[in-house]
Amino acid sequence: MPDQVTVIGGSGALGTGLALRLAVAGVPVVIGSRDAARAEEAAARVREQVPGATVTGLPNGPAAEASDVVFLCVPFRSQSETLTNLKNHLREGQLLVDATVPLAAAVSGKATRTLGVWQGSAAQQAAEMVPEGVRVVAALHTVNAPGLKDLGATLDEDVLVCGDRRADKAQAAALIELIPGLRCVDAGRLEQARIAESLTALLIGVNVRYKTHAGIRLTGLTDRPW
Amino acid sequence: MPDQVTVIGGSGALGTGLALRLAVAGVPVVIGSRDAARAEEAAARVREQVPGATVTGLPNGPAAEASDVVFLCVPFRSQSETLTNLKNHLREGQLLVDATVPLAAAVSGKATRTLGVWQGSAAQQAAEMVPEGVRVVAALHTVNAPGLKDLGATLDEDVLVCGDRRADKAQAAALIELIPGLRCVDAGRLEQARIAESLTALLIGVNVRYKTHAGIRLTGLTDRPW
Repeated sequence: MPDQVTVIGGSGALGTGLALRLAVAGVPVVIGSRDAARAEEAAARVREQVPGATVTGLPNGPAAEASDVVFLCVPFRSQSETLTNLKNHLREGQLLVDATVPLAAAVSGKATRTLGVWQGSAAQQAAEMVPEGVRVVAALHTVNAPGLKDLGATLDEDVLVCGDRRADKAQAAALIELIPGLRCVDAGRLEQARIAESLTALLIGVNVRYKTHAGIRLTGLTDRPW
Repeated sequence: MPDQVTVIGGSGALGTGLALRLAVAGVPVVIGSRDAARAEEAAARVREQVPGATVTGLPNGPAAEASDVVFLCVPFRSQSETLTNLKNHLREGQLLVDATVPLAAAVSGKATRTLGVWQGSAAQQAAEMVPEGVRVVAALHTVNAPGLKDLGATLDEDVLVCGDRRADKAQAAALIELIPGLRCVDAGRLEQARIAESLTALLIGVNVRYKTHAGIRLTGLTDRPW
């Protein structure tokens, strides 16, 4: 059985879908939420859809402590506060996979625009805020959350993975690629997350115009093992 | 026969490929270059590869005057100077299709990074600089130039088209989609060009890591006529 993973923000759209799809893939999942009851509710919904799945709900702190790999799937509005509250729960050696997109919607602006983040990207802000020794990669920004949440939907998307160490990206990719239809692409250093994050804003506009849930694929890539 | 188009920067990689592919599609092409001799050389190379093609080379000014649609395919380093020099050559009613990417390479930085452009994007800078009444859309940033230039290569990419008026985007798309393998996607207002431009920097990094010429496709889009 694969190692357990934690999904913080697991009651939001992306987090719920990710937890669900990982559970289908046989990965034990801990769903973290600010509110313990909401976390447990989200976990119960996954268990209902995936009989036999090992999914539990916990408040963010204990949830973050529970696994070596922690996915952070919160709105940008909550990212900084969440990481501040996790300072005493995250520990050296863990891998944080940040999926935060600094949409201007966080300050009631347009979801087709991003905010400028001082560090360059939400992922770099996360890297600055985690305790020393916690590794950070960025991924999953562009993945269509409704498609993840709908087990009847066939996924057909690439996931841009950014990070400063190849081994960290490979570790995140190995987990994400347990979900059929998702291929991870090494998109470069963590600083490239600003591009992957902003691409999400462009896709949100495309979704509105085309009434769809668009994803991206990179063409011309020879398959390369991580 | 389709109307003639002009490609400024037609002796560069993207411009050469675009001129070549449009010529194959039967579009009469005027190639503009700062240097008249280089423009004519580039035109001669296209005529050699595409027997019967109507391709001529002119200095930028007369080239820009020659067609209703003008593609701007110059390096960011030259964009501002080129547009300044075209102020008395462009005229109301023309459509400028800007493909400029503000890579940090313009100031000897990394090609995987972009420069911040005051107006938000190179395309918005272009829109500010053209004479009144010249319409501007942004497109073609992410298209792999070596693939365009190699008539033996099969293209398989989407082109993100940004602009403030749908009719302008549709006009550019109709031309670009004459090239087999390229599909144009309405990527939103001109301000979204900053995202399409920066995506190019990410793809450049991918190209290095995967030793390829990557393009992008959006998945989940129902085909929609422009």
